[in-house]
Amino acid sequence: MRYISKCFHRSSTAIGTLLPAATVNLMRVEARLAELGLVLPQALKAPPNVRLPFTNVRVRDNRAFVAGHGPLNPDGSLAGPFGKVPTDVSLEQAQQSARLVCLSMLASLKRELGDLDRITCWLRVFGMVNSTPTFNAQPNVINGCSDLLLEVFGPEVGQHARSAVGLAALPFDIPVEIEAEVEISLA
Amino acid sequence: MRYISKCFHRSSTAIGTLLPAATVNLMRVEARLAELGLVLPQALKAPPNVRLPFTNVRVRDNRAFVAGHGPLNPDGSLAGPFGKVPTDVSLEQAQQSARLVCLSMLASLKRELGDLDRITCWLRVFGMVNSTPTFNAQPNVINGCSDLLLEVFGPEVGQHARSAVGLAALPFDIPVEIEAEVEISLA
Amino acid sequence: MRYISKCFHRSSTAIGTLLPAATVNLMRVEARLAELGLVLPQALKAPPNVRLPFTNVRVRDNRAFVAGHGPLNPDGSLAGPFGKVPTDVSLEQAQQSARLVCLSMLASLKRELGDLDRITCWLRVFGMVNSTPTFNAQPNVINGCSDLLLEVFGPEVGQHARSAVGLAALPFDIPVEIEAEVEISLA
Repeated sequence: MRYISKCFHRSSTAIGTLLPAATVNLMRVEARLAELGLVLPQALKAPPNVRLPFTNVRVRDNRAFVAGHGPLNPDGSLAGPFGKVPTDVSLEQAQQSARLVCLSMLASLKRELGDLDRITCWLRVFGMVNSTPTFNAQPNVINGCSDLLLEVFGPEVGQHARSAVGLAALPFDIPVEIEAEVEISLA
Repeated sequence: MRYISKCFHRSSTAIGTLLPAATVNLMRVEARLAELGLVLPQALKAPPNVRLPFTNVRVRDNRAFVAGHGPLNPDGSLAGPFGKVPTDVSLEQAQQSARLVCLSMLASLKRELGDLDRITCWLRVFGMVNSTPTFNAQPNVINGCSDLLLEVFGPEVGQHARSAVGLAALPFDIPVEIEAEVEISLA
Repeated sequence: MRYISKCFHRSSTAIGTLLPAATVNLMRVEARLAELGLVLPQALKAPPNVRLPFTNVRVRDNRAFVAGHGPLNPDGSLAGPFGKVPTDVSLEQAQQSARLVCLSMLASLKRELGDLDRITCWLRVFGMVNSTPTFNAQPNVINGCSDLLLEVFGPEVGQHARSAVGLAALPFDIPVEIEAEVEISLA
């Protein structure tokens, strides 16, 4: 009785009783992204002489571990501005960067899972902001990611536990890096 | 034979054979907190103009992901002192702060789970200390949390894998932030 | 059809059909370490007056959570050089340090699991580099760990999602600390 799943079961929605399941489930998340005018970037084009010997998404059973992602341009190149928040990169720019990081994670998940609707529950979001020692508004920055997750996946699937903290330095001077863990359906 | 679960199964304790299960299980952890004179704080009262669009505890099946927590006063306001360890906040003060963070995590888990005895196994504790570049005693600080977990949950349920590391900056200048993952029973 | 497990199931290998299972499975990972001339260090000898009240590996069901580890000498003492990358510790030295951290994690897993071949899937590697504010080559440093995992466990079991980020400070001034999560078999 005390145990209430906070995640969304698509098969039991009201809509699911009115439309064929295939219609309902088909690319729901991507339709939402398109409505918002958002485009998933291509895979990261690593800077010259950089080897990244790991996978962006590690799937095991019904879990996907999302590696630390940075902000990308649509062509997969790293998206500026670069440097520390708030001296090199303003709070507003960093928030936009966190939104790009979110799209970059979604692009990797799409490539790995085939379909973003296989994500049944966001679990953990770990937001890292390239911070000067006196910057203390990391939550405002990472809201750029959290708000987008909730907007695109809805308040049940998109909900997540989160940390938003200040790192001394990040790879390639990106202002924001985020890693995550999600639950996925096996289908 | 080599596989030995390190977690405590309440149903198989010696006490469990002497007393009715309901009596044994009822609020064991909270009784321990009361014995120690410890009070769980109210939910975080976020500072003005701060939105925190995520959940403090994300439950899925038998796992609970605990978001990054800071130290709280009993009324839910952020508890000082604030700033970097060891210049603004002494090692001893930071240790006490880590203890308050632990209570803050327990308060969130209590609100989410209804009963802290549903926690069957602490898994991962990630302790972040707001550090000057030369501070190197993060383990001593985070012991304030680990010691309390072991004291309240006992050496089997309370045991955990841990990191204790130095962050460049933390939200609202809190000296310690901790996130965690625990196993819970579904009842 | 879209769901492809990236992990290696030893029981279904071609070799497994030619040799008795016991022969195939016996100490495969340790044989590989020996081939490479690598030695697992003894358990951490904590510096004087340091209490570490947590476990290096927390096992629950088919998951093992690996606490933050530092670089060790074969006798279990912390391995230098110490300090920040790249001023006190060069990029190349830090890469070697990340390799020692990997061996230190494997030593803890061996002590906990009895047999490193019980590791069926590396999931998450979180690499932390003790960084000056301008250092931005954390991925190159943590490659010292990722490359060794892939070399020893192969591209399927050893694959992992990873973050490589810059911390302001680490315990005992170690240049690299890594925590991880792995899947294990219950046998």
